Amino acid sequence: MTSFIRALRFTSPRLPFICTGAVERVISAFRSVSGDEGVSVGLAVREQHGKDESVHRCQPPDVVVFPRSVEEVSALAKICHHHQLPIIPFGTGTGLEGGVGALKGGVCFSLRKMEQVLDLHQEDFDVTVEPGVTRKSLNSYLRDTGLWFPVDPGADASLCGMAATSASGTNAVRYGTMRENVLNLEVVLADGTILHTAGKGRRPRKTSAGYNLTNLFVGSEGTLGIITKTTLRLYGIPESMVSAVCSFPSVQSAVDSTVQILQAGVPIARIEFLDDVMMNACNRFNNLSYAVTPTLFLEFHGELQKHGGAEEITRDNGGSDFAWAEDEETRSRLWKARHDAWYAALALRPGCPIAGHVGDGNFHCLIVLDPNDQDEVQRVHSFTERLARRALSMDGTCTGEHGIGLGKRALLKEEVGPLAIEVMQGLKATLDPKNLMNPGKVL
Amino acid sequence: MTSFIRALRFTSPRLPFICTGAVERVISAFRSVSGDEGVSVGLAVREQHGKDESVHRCQPPDVVVFPRSVEEVSALAKICHHHQLPIIPFGTGTGLEGGVGALKGGVCFSLRKMEQVLDLHQEDFDVTVEPGVTRKSLNSYLRDTGLWFPVDPGADASLCGMAATSASGTNAVRYGTMRENVLNLEVVLADGTILHTAGKGRRPRKTSAGYNLTNLFVGSEGTLGIITKTTLRLYGIPESMVSAVCSFPSVQSAVDSTVQILQAGVPIARIEFLDDVMMNACNRFNNLSYAVTPTLFLEFHGELQKHGGAEEITRDNGGSDFAWAEDEETRSRLWKARHDAWYAALALRPGCPIAGHVGDGNFHCLIVLDPNDQDEVQRVHSFTERLARRALSMDGTCTGEHGIGLGKRALLKEEVGPLAIEVMQGLKATLDPKNLMNPGKVL
Ligand SMILES: Cc1cc2nc3c(=O)[nH]c(=O)nc-3n(C[C@H](O)[C@H](O)[C@H](O)COP(=O)(O)OP(=O)(O)OC[C@H]3O[C@@H](n4cnc5c(N)ncnc54)[C@H](O)[C@@H]3O)c2cc1C
Ligand SMILES: Cc1cc2nc3c(=O)[nH]c(=O)nc-3n(C[C@H](O)[C@H](O)[C@H](O)COP(=O)(O)OP(=O)(O)OC[C@H]3O[C@@H](n4cnc5c(N)ncnc54)[C@H](O)[C@@H]3O)c2cc1C
Repeated sequence: MTSFIRALRFTSPRLPFICTGAVERVISAFRSVSGDEGVSVGLAVREQHGKDESVHRCQPPDVVVFPRSVEEVSALAKICHHHQLPIIPFGTGTGLEGGVGALKGGVCFSLRKMEQVLDLHQEDFDVTVEPGVTRKSLNSYLRDTGLWFPVDPGADASLCGMAATSASGTNAVRYGTMRENVLNLEVVLADGTILHTAGKGRRPRKTSAGYNLTNLFVGSEGTLGIITKTTLRLYGIPESMVSAVCSFPSVQSAVDSTVQILQAGVPIARIEFLDDVMMNACNRFNNLSYAVTPTLFLEFHGELQKHGGAEEITRDNGGSDFAWAEDEETRSRLWKARHDAWYAALALRPGCPIAGHVGDGNFHCLIVLDPNDQDEVQRVHSFTERLARRALSMDGTCTGEHGIGLGKRALLKEEVGPLAIEVMQGLKATLDPKNLMNPGKVL
Repeated sequence: MTSFIRALRFTSPRLPFICTGAVERVISAFRSVSGDEGVSVGLAVREQHGKDESVHRCQPPDVVVFPRSVEEVSALAKICHHHQLPIIPFGTGTGLEGGVGALKGGVCFSLRKMEQVLDLHQEDFDVTVEPGVTRKSLNSYLRDTGLWFPVDPGADASLCGMAATSASGTNAVRYGTMRENVLNLEVVLADGTILHTAGKGRRPRKTSAGYNLTNLFVGSEGTLGIITKTTLRLYGIPESMVSAVCSFPSVQSAVDSTVQILQAGVPIARIEFLDDVMMNACNRFNNLSYAVTPTLFLEFHGELQKHGGAEEITRDNGGSDFAWAEDEETRSRLWKARHDAWYAALALRPGCPIAGHVGDGNFHCLIVLDPNDQDEVQRVHSFTERLARRALSMDGTCTGEHGIGLGKRALLKEEVGPLAIEVMQGLKATLDPKNLMNPGKVL
């Protein structure tokens, strides 16, 4: 447990020396809150919690706690606050920016034991969930209600983790991202106090009451507080969903079609772009035979008639092989190719496929690398920096989704400028003056 | 100019006495920035700027400045900062919560001379506007592009003022409110520095880069800074828009229809509710002959086929006289009744009509009163407090739109609780430590 000791030393300038006794006292304080099975210092558990799905290397915390209620989260946070120990919230670890790494050691709050769906209000289209509830488990829970939660980052992430990273995904063009769909958050602050960003138990579909605290915490990546409940906006499952796939002679023609489809006001739910390398990988991974060319996957929700307009637009731009899928099975088969893109890419080596949520102007380059080849890691690093700077030079952002985490802090500075960084630091200092919440991330 | 002197005294404990010389020096500093015609101390101009469209009484500022550029706004703000003078931003004065009243005297920044539409990017569906640009003037500017900005609070407000109050309106059910449609803001802070909330010149459709500063300023009602540019998301004008109106035997049946229409996933753009009193007033005001019963006004954007579903739902709930309007003229005539509701209500006395953006769960009670009858004012005040508390007791908000301003500060405390207020105060202190920005509002 040397790094726990280091952590205590690092964040506690007032402690002149650290004796094992202090560490033991902290651990036993945690145990008195969450029980023996709620506190783990085993290496395997700590390593599981020091890494997400990205290339960032594992940085295990010193201890992992598994609170079962907001009261426990609050009590544990108070202990950390008292001892000036870093707190790192952990959802399902599907993040892609190294957000859960314990850079300065400290205490990982794994929230998976808090897995209740609370307060479903069918008539008001909202629900409140604890941080252990994932996107898929919420949608199974909702199955018989005619409602669903559409934000879909592919991975089966925790909904509170999705709020923490401001996640979005393929449906964002129609339903927005987490920013537009979180109505309220319960947050345990660094000192253990419990904040309700829109007031306790409230679930206004729309409000202009004071500063928008909810959206300050959405996307704060665990650096401002621990999200212990999120109240979400739900939607009626559309009466009809129709999917389509279409091949293009060039990237440009696929992009032109996208712009024109959006311009025509066709109420499209998803438009996903996959380049030829990605299509090839998908074909190989799932044994499919799509044309190996730039391709759009589309989905229309709610009405059948106007979709034809989209087909016409793609044809005008040189698109071909436009294939419709109406029944659920065919649609699922069609989307499986897109959803497996990440794993298809991992199976691909060498190569750099591109997949994009083009409906909202957001592209991913999936680069498969050997993390042990330092030279390659370096080359990939400079490529991704160049890519992000290209986006910035076009007035864009270095991170449409996934957040800043560990890897994009320098780019954030370039993107927003020194004054905005200063303002963000001021907000952070107001909410977490001791810099205990997920230190070293975002800023 | 006694109140200017009071303001100087009030906010400048360090000044032992105020001589006319100090006032003159400030005024002439303003003039050296914005010219003689850019600074007004005349009573008529000050009174015009001390009041919005609500019942809150006029509280004129000591001086009104009319900057022509962000550089002027910044230079003027620096002078105010140096002399610790309150700054009150002024858009078009259509607010409904007394937001522009100069409670502590000070300097009104009227932004109407900054009226350029900048950087229209048709392919990217965004545009940047200065604070003098109103909703209607932007939409005329866009007329030939096939694009529009749909957020519509009825009044022809400035778009930066709409951002400042987090405005929404009839289209919110489909297009969201200002929160969902502002991509970036340029803001002059209390000390005159110029902040770009998402980075200078950026216009990401979607971002997860750092804390969401944009949405911290949206809805801040001039208390955190002066918005000098807003970058907005645009939409393709839907190929078809169809409106409809339908009468109901009871409020409940109209509300049930609304819930079911939303649940069916019909992509509806507006659902507006008007009660019988309101319908009567509208009939009288516009010489119409709608049934004097609870009524829904509906609008569907983009596709024709599925609207029938809505008609069926209303019929199942006892709705009658369902009337479609397809061509633009008939649609405009239909919506005129709804849009004139405010003025129809003013013509009504006594009575308390109800109009609601029921699509997003938001109701207004329009109460016509005689502001000189103190007893009536008091009765109305206790009625509106009771109304807001009723909304709060149903997990709602005291202000779905319009903001907090002057009149709803006590209710805000009840709504969000003491800790959230403390956090808001902390954010305010970080951004405006001297409390110069629109003091006495929101918090
Ligand atoms: C195959 C794949 C595809 C993906 N596609 C997309 C996509 O299309 N769009 C997209 O947006 N994302 C995508 N992602 C990444 C996405 O960011 C994560 O899936 C998710 O949003 C994070 O949730 P989590 O619970 O796994 O969080 P974790 O990985 O556990 O944590 C992520 C960050 O959030 C913080 N955090 C987690 N929970 C909380 C909490 N309760 N309170 C406070 N902070 C918390 C952590 O401290 C960390 O900083 C993808 C990931 C994978 C693996
Ligand atoms: C008939 C009628 C119907 C309405 N219906 C609706 C409705 O359906 N939905 C709705 O949301 N609203 C509605 N409103 C009110 C709405 O809030 C205002 O119309 C608008 O949002 C305010 O814009 P403005 O430019 O007039 O701001 P002002 O009235 O000038 O100011 C309002 C507040 O914003 C601040 N402010 C203004 N400009 C700036 C700026 N550039 N930077 C910083 N702060 C600024 C002011 O200091 C003040 O606190 C309605 C108003 C009327 C008269």
